[in-house]
Amino acid sequence: MSVCPFVQTTSTQALRQISKNSGALAQRARQCPFMSGAIQQQESARFYSQATKPRRASASPNQPSSFSSPYRFDAEKLTEPQVTLGSKETAFDFDGFLNHDLNKKRSDKSYRYFNNINRLAHDFPKAHRTQEEDKVTVWCSNDYLGMGRNEATLNEMKRILDKYGSGAGGTRNIAGHNAHAIKLESELAALHKHEAALVFSSCFVANDAVLSLFGQKVKDLVIFSDELNHASMIQGIRNSRAQKQIFKHNDLVDLETKLAKYPKSTPKLIAFESVYSMCGSVAPIEAICDLAEKYGAVTFLDEVHAVGMYGPHGAGVAEHLNFAAHLKSGINNPEIKTVMSRVDMVTGTLGKAYGCVGGYITGKANLIDWFRSYAPGFIFTTTLPPAIMAGAATSIRYQRATLQDRIAQQKNTRYVKDNMNQLGLPVIPNPSHIVPVLVGNAADAKKASDLLLNKHDIYVQAINFPTVPIGEERLRITPTPGHGAEIADHLIEAVDSVFNELNLKRIDDWANLGGLCGVGEENSSEIQHLWSDEQLSLTDDKLNPNVLNPVISPIGVSSGVGM
Amino acid sequence: MSVCPFVQTTSTQALRQISKNSGALAQRARQCPFMSGAIQQQESARFYSQATKPRRASASPNQPSSFSSPYRFDAEKLTEPQVTLGSKETAFDFDGFLNHDLNKKRSDKSYRYFNNINRLAHDFPKAHRTQEEDKVTVWCSNDYLGMGRNEATLNEMKRILDKYGSGAGGTRNIAGHNAHAIKLESELAALHKHEAALVFSSCFVANDAVLSLFGQKVKDLVIFSDELNHASMIQGIRNSRAQKQIFKHNDLVDLETKLAKYPKSTPKLIAFESVYSMCGSVAPIEAICDLAEKYGAVTFLDEVHAVGMYGPHGAGVAEHLNFAAHLKSGINNPEIKTVMSRVDMVTGTLGKAYGCVGGYITGKANLIDWFRSYAPGFIFTTTLPPAIMAGAATSIRYQRATLQDRIAQQKNTRYVKDNMNQLGLPVIPNPSHIVPVLVGNAADAKKASDLLLNKHDIYVQAINFPTVPIGEERLRITPTPGHGAEIADHLIEAVDSVFNELNLKRIDDWANLGGLCGVGEENSSEIQHLWSDEQLSLTDDKLNPNVLNPVISPIGVSSGVGM
Repeated sequence: MSVCPFVQTTSTQALRQISKNSGALAQRARQCPFMSGAIQQQESARFYSQATKPRRASASPNQPSSFSSPYRFDAEKLTEPQVTLGSKETAFDFDGFLNHDLNKKRSDKSYRYFNNINRLAHDFPKAHRTQEEDKVTVWCSNDYLGMGRNEATLNEMKRILDKYGSGAGGTRNIAGHNAHAIKLESELAALHKHEAALVFSSCFVANDAVLSLFGQKVKDLVIFSDELNHASMIQGIRNSRAQKQIFKHNDLVDLETKLAKYPKSTPKLIAFESVYSMCGSVAPIEAICDLAEKYGAVTFLDEVHAVGMYGPHGAGVAEHLNFAAHLKSGINNPEIKTVMSRVDMVTGTLGKAYGCVGGYITGKANLIDWFRSYAPGFIFTTTLPPAIMAGAATSIRYQRATLQDRIAQQKNTRYVKDNMNQLGLPVIPNPSHIVPVLVGNAADAKKASDLLLNKHDIYVQAINFPTVPIGEERLRITPTPGHGAEIADHLIEAVDSVFNELNLKRIDDWANLGGLCGVGEENSSEIQHLWSDEQLSLTDDKLNPNVLNPVISPIGVSSGVGM
Repeated sequence: MSVCPFVQTTSTQALRQISKNSGALAQRARQCPFMSGAIQQQESARFYSQATKPRRASASPNQPSSFSSPYRFDAEKLTEPQVTLGSKETAFDFDGFLNHDLNKKRSDKSYRYFNNINRLAHDFPKAHRTQEEDKVTVWCSNDYLGMGRNEATLNEMKRILDKYGSGAGGTRNIAGHNAHAIKLESELAALHKHEAALVFSSCFVANDAVLSLFGQKVKDLVIFSDELNHASMIQGIRNSRAQKQIFKHNDLVDLETKLAKYPKSTPKLIAFESVYSMCGSVAPIEAICDLAEKYGAVTFLDEVHAVGMYGPHGAGVAEHLNFAAHLKSGINNPEIKTVMSRVDMVTGTLGKAYGCVGGYITGKANLIDWFRSYAPGFIFTTTLPPAIMAGAATSIRYQRATLQDRIAQQKNTRYVKDNMNQLGLPVIPNPSHIVPVLVGNAADAKKASDLLLNKHDIYVQAINFPTVPIGEERLRITPTPGHGAEIADHLIEAVDSVFNELNLKRIDDWANLGGLCGVGEENSSEIQHLWSDEQLSLTDDKLNPNVLNPVISPIGVSSGVGM
């Protein structure tokens, strides 16, 4: 039997001592040529295996991997630390390392060129490129409702700029806590009908900070993560060091199988999104809450692409699932137990449908207070500017009382999807507001995007790896209330012409290949829209009048009072 | 000799196979009751041991530790996963866990109550509290130069809001890249006289994203980190999983001893700050660059509390070290080799001296392009609003050509320090613009801050754990150009009265106890100010005219072109 030299030459007593002492064994394990490499590789692989979407991982031998660099995981043996004062050795070639890594991106076509797009508030949805006279129609922004040019929001921002200046001037603890933070967090808690809310620099930061804190602090936590979760959640889970179980996208059977592997007493967290932004799929939120209850898990729901867009008041898909009840009760809690009230944590953004910037989490008061008290990503950073927080709060109020924008957005989405389908353009089927058009390789997706931009004055960004898996590259189209039939027709004609010009695959072509991402697959037409026809026929006068300029009490948790 | 059951019952061939396979051994190690606990504990300890400042870690038996919770690292054996479908066991008590953790903070007085402070642009440096008529003078904001109310910046922000709306509407890759991002990054690169720059949501995000990417991608990287580094750097280093060596604060001997332990060919990164914000100490940047060169390390310098404040053009302490040369060359590179050009990476903020929000890094073009191409915290988040980026660029331009603000700030700082010292008030000696007044325990610091606020209408936040170590609690005062002699006298009288009222220790008291943080210690008066008397006598007409509204070419790296 082969035993490692360290185990062989160390006494049992010493081994016992080491394994009891804080981290001494782990520290030694990191010096071991077998263990250290294995630990490092496994930890990194956990992160990137999810980011690269494992189900396609073996599709192409040329798939870019963050770990194929000769500078990482090569066969070199680890050198024992030694004193080398005054050594004449050559230093590590950082420059060569960087250039190698960048060339890898260029050669696999995942190197990114950013388009200079300046969206014009008074000529929405147009933008100018580098030259002001060079205008294009933007069809891929996440300013889903066009709130970026909303007059109420802009006027409030300018008023607050004049009165309170351009920046918060400190962290929330040191000079950066103010009436705007309290108001925004109260507004957000009221929107989701949760006890409290906390604002972060972005929802990337919120997801990362919240998930990593959970895993670092809750002993033995197991995180169950949907395989299509956003990079921010993957990063948070990775940084949490918690045990992770990735379940198949929206697959309740797979999730339950994995949950059932652990005793009910093991702390568990299920992390998922409501609307998955690159394919438009929607999670079975209620069924996941059922499983969470059955197996003793808390639920973490990212509603980043849904807030502002779903539910009678724009609180997201969880609100949408009890549409009638929330519509009736307005700003108040409905009498029934709602899906929204069953979700433990909701994260959302102020930078997409609400047209500003920033992220947040809502939940029970003690949970929010805990993040406020312990999350470094919240504690040690400058508060968002007062004008941003005030603008976001105005947007939320505005959208709470404006069904029409959500409805117009959905109608415009249906128009684009239906007309593209009739032309055989391969829209990835989904029940939400995203219109992903499958292309299938990076070079063609870029060519299609460039043609639309340069020949048709239409900006639709090509979505390539690592945002989507290799082989599933697409154009991602996002209509807004401002993208009516006339400009939609121009878009559809242009996409049709580009598909002809580049000889790209249409629905039938994908069907002949067995289908991909739901395109050309059976049952793909049976998708049911989140917004029903009946809901789309509603008008703003059906809203409960209590949503018009409601009085919302400031929340104590925001300041740490009354807890 | 005792051997673990796994090693005992597994064949040599199987062991070899496992250790070669991607992460199989590490995965098994995490299931091992000894290894998993040790690995987790060590990883967490690495993070928090630095955050809690180890040198004081044993000072108090009641010191709060993030790991004293019975919910973490208790003696329970890990349970083997097993199928428990339909189990009637009790679920983990998340609520109890959260309440326990929050009560711990309350009992050790580290629980934080945020003060509602609304800084008024037209009544600087005053702010109103919850009631608009309840006004206080703010003495602890990081809006160091009062740029938050600068008219040029505010007008530009309002102009851009009107023209381009409230939000960027997407990530840099998808609809969120624009002329404002390019302009700001070009401005920042020019400020630091580096090839390129990249803007992040905040400098917390920049530090975390950059340091963690480095460690994840550069095999065998060792990061050398000053023990007083900011939480964002600690988090980035921790998330990098790289080997870490913490060196004593600003201690070149300790740093060199640690560097010399490794062969020159081992990739190394030295992470440090220019101005340490809680004590005002300043790093020996040039000497650290010398060591980096000698031992083959790249340098990562956080200038968050120095940008806008030091150097003839506000580029920070690295610029200040070649003051005359930069003053003479203006926007251009001096003929000599400068400290600024020797530092590989500078990170900075747009949220303190520049009065807005956001963070950035500058460096060589390929380095910046690498972060742009690989850092998830940059790639997967919404771009800052155009108005924020335009406002920040305006602030940088304004401050590049305005020596007077920096000089007035330094003069006001000296006034406060000198007068407090004469009264025996225990200002922690330092060469920078920070005025830390030592209190020495959390309860007194909070009481002092509350008294100043409620009795004297002065807002100076108490700084407690985890921002400073237990026992080193302080009031942190930050004068601005707007804090002249009259209001400074009011502050000094108020602090003097509060010290009397609460019977707080003065310099002599600390000296009798052997001193702390440089207060009451020998040689503490010999500190040399960063700004010399000669520099403080300069006027704006001594600036090279080429800094007045310079033409700065857009940088290709920002868009990925010309690389």
